[in-house]
Amino acid sequence: VDTEDQTQLTELMEPLHAADIADLLEQLNSYDRARLIRLYDREFDGDILSELDESIREEVIATLRPQVLADAVRELESDDVVDLIEDLEEPQQEAILDALEDSDRVAVEQAMAWPEGSAGRLMQREVVMAPEHWNVGQAIDHLRNSDELPEQFYHIVLVDPRMHPIGNVTLGKLMGSRREVPLIDLTEDMFRVIPATQDEEDVAYAFNQYHLISAPVVDEEGRLAGVITIDDAMAVLDEEHEEDILRLAGVSDDSSLSDSVADTAKRRLPWLAVNLLTAILASLVISQFEETLSKFVALAVLMPIVASMGGNAGTQSLTVAVRALATKDLTGANVWRVIRREVVVGLLNGLVFAVSMGIIGLVWFNSPIIGYVIAVAMVINLMVAGLAGTVIPVVMDKMGVDPALASGTFVTTVTDVVGFFAFLGLAGMVMM
Amino acid sequence: VDTEDQTQLTELMEPLHAADIADLLEQLNSYDRARLIRLYDREFDGDILSELDESIREEVIATLRPQVLADAVRELESDDVVDLIEDLEEPQQEAILDALEDSDRVAVEQAMAWPEGSAGRLMQREVVMAPEHWNVGQAIDHLRNSDELPEQFYHIVLVDPRMHPIGNVTLGKLMGSRREVPLIDLTEDMFRVIPATQDEEDVAYAFNQYHLISAPVVDEEGRLAGVITIDDAMAVLDEEHEEDILRLAGVSDDSSLSDSVADTAKRRLPWLAVNLLTAILASLVISQFEETLSKFVALAVLMPIVASMGGNAGTQSLTVAVRALATKDLTGANVWRVIRREVVVGLLNGLVFAVSMGIIGLVWFNSPIIGYVIAVAMVINLMVAGLAGTVIPVVMDKMGVDPALASGTFVTTVTDVVGFFAFLGLAGMVMM
Repeated sequence: VDTEDQTQLTELMEPLHAADIADLLEQLNSYDRARLIRLYDREFDGDILSELDESIREEVIATLRPQVLADAVRELESDDVVDLIEDLEEPQQEAILDALEDSDRVAVEQAMAWPEGSAGRLMQREVVMAPEHWNVGQAIDHLRNSDELPEQFYHIVLVDPRMHPIGNVTLGKLMGSRREVPLIDLTEDMFRVIPATQDEEDVAYAFNQYHLISAPVVDEEGRLAGVITIDDAMAVLDEEHEEDILRLAGVSDDSSLSDSVADTAKRRLPWLAVNLLTAILASLVISQFEETLSKFVALAVLMPIVASMGGNAGTQSLTVAVRALATKDLTGANVWRVIRREVVVGLLNGLVFAVSMGIIGLVWFNSPIIGYVIAVAMVINLMVAGLAGTVIPVVMDKMGVDPALASGTFVTTVTDVVGFFAFLGLAGMVMM
Repeated sequence: VDTEDQTQLTELMEPLHAADIADLLEQLNSYDRARLIRLYDREFDGDILSELDESIREEVIATLRPQVLADAVRELESDDVVDLIEDLEEPQQEAILDALEDSDRVAVEQAMAWPEGSAGRLMQREVVMAPEHWNVGQAIDHLRNSDELPEQFYHIVLVDPRMHPIGNVTLGKLMGSRREVPLIDLTEDMFRVIPATQDEEDVAYAFNQYHLISAPVVDEEGRLAGVITIDDAMAVLDEEHEEDILRLAGVSDDSSLSDSVADTAKRRLPWLAVNLLTAILASLVISQFEETLSKFVALAVLMPIVASMGGNAGTQSLTVAVRALATKDLTGANVWRVIRREVVVGLLNGLVFAVSMGIIGLVWFNSPIIGYVIAVAMVINLMVAGLAGTVIPVVMDKMGVDPALASGTFVTTVTDVVGFFAFLGLAGMVMM
């Protein structure tokens, strides 16, 4: 396609949504990407920039001619510009700010004054509001006489004289009610005010938990500063999930498929290094039993089984705990019950696999003692796995660290060390 | 609290949202839960049932007196009833259907005719629509004269004479336009029609990708059958993420914190059993080298390090691939580039850890040969980890199996087998 003429390309891209064009750009390699952008830059849409992955966004912005970039950015709403520039380097940020009209630039700069990842960054500043004492007729007339309504809005926010938001009225209710009904009688049951400094993760949780569609955001004095709608909250929820799932696997959460090889390798290195240290720790445990091992090589054959089962069971408990912490289902009220449950589950499954491994050990190595040792070690390690898999993320959460971030490595370290120690230690005691 | 009087309890619970009451019930043990429900049942809200975890929902429904249950269910909208009953056992389903009014029961039964997990189950059947030739004035008058508008609606769906949806008009646009403007001039740019048979996972993806707020659902003949709004899509997105994260850890995805110990143990057993088989496979590989091991016990001490590093690197690649498949960022167009990238990343990080482990092996065991063997085995295993971590989920996805479901076990099996084989095999060749 890329060698073809500009008109044909523009025709092909015409029906595509900005998000799809962004996906297309992400899937090309950098060389083809630059060629495509240079061919396509007549109609380059600002929304494409918003939809691009961070790592590629900088590259694309650098490729675009300044004039095209300025046109693209000027089309965007102020909250999209904030989202676009907050991860860019200083010089690119300024290039974009300079391209904006004065009023937009002020709006963007005000939003950037809120901390990164806060509701203040997420909100849009255009709000449709009405004084609390108005009735339906006044609100409808006001709306019909407004020159510029926001692109998307679903509620009217009622405010008191000090600009404190006191309720939401949906446009649907407004349409369906007689003109003389006071707005205050039509407010939604479910109404939550969000402080501008609140973490966007908590905002997404509130939308999901309380089925909010939009919620007013207030500044430190409780005055209406903007509004967050469910589509923004959904995007945050999606990002948070991505972060959780990648962190659980020890992948840095700002990585993406379009990162370069060197970047990817560098980003994955730290957790592998941590894992190396913990693996060496496990090896040190094993080396304490070199004498036992040299007499009974069968132990070396079987020992990874105990460690692997413990690691697996620990990861199961861990993932359930991390997820329950994220959805606020695991709290101080039930933490002891959950821990007890995980340990008992470890005991039950430990017994099942103790019996099977005991039999396998007996048949394979024709030694009842090996069967007995692996069975007991299995029960111990699966109980420890349940305990560590729950306690470690809970403690990290209490300490204010994201439990998804490092618990995986800690849990498998515990199950490796306990697994090798229990198996080889028991074998040493019984067999020597 | 539970031993206290009913009035005080009702007062305490009054300000709570149904979702919070549901969370509260989930955190109690069954005995306290039953007592609380019996005390509170005068005002039991149907929404609480919708918010409850499946495992507890059956228990709560069994605890409620039939009259209270009937009252609670009758308040709900038909799509919430569908969501409520689709996971219940037959007798409970019928008890709830019988409690509904005739018209509601028919609506619920029609929705249940669509396959589980489809858009047809997710949609609400109450749609506000208008013929394509109407203008703003006609639409406003129609809305203002309707007796019963849905609780929540944000768009008017335009339909042609054959009831095919052709566009969405937001209430905001309707409010802000003059009466004589034709509705067809106000339709949203972003308009997607969803077939009722489409998988809810794809529905959630479309809402997230295209920033939809609501979308009409059509039956097999393309006629308007209902509408899905973003809050439903957000709930599905959240469930899908939960499913992915739990499946990656080998936890069955319908498990929850409030399951009983026996249920939990039973649900976690299958993946542990699979893991046992693969661990035994790895042990069989080790047992091929018993002779080498009995001569050099140091190998037994170091061999888990190679396997563990491979398992970790493989999980990193795997998680990135599973996530990229879910967000449709990994496609046929870039799969070879991604595979090549992962292998090269494995090579680079393999070289880094080969050097460090080579030195550690040399210093610890004072043997250059052990250092050399572990270094080479490390590079091989990390490259294989990158390959297996990408190819396995891609192949599973092609075969129509959820790549999150079982790939973790497969990938670590590969890295364990390759890790032990490369390390012990090389050692055998070099040292014997």
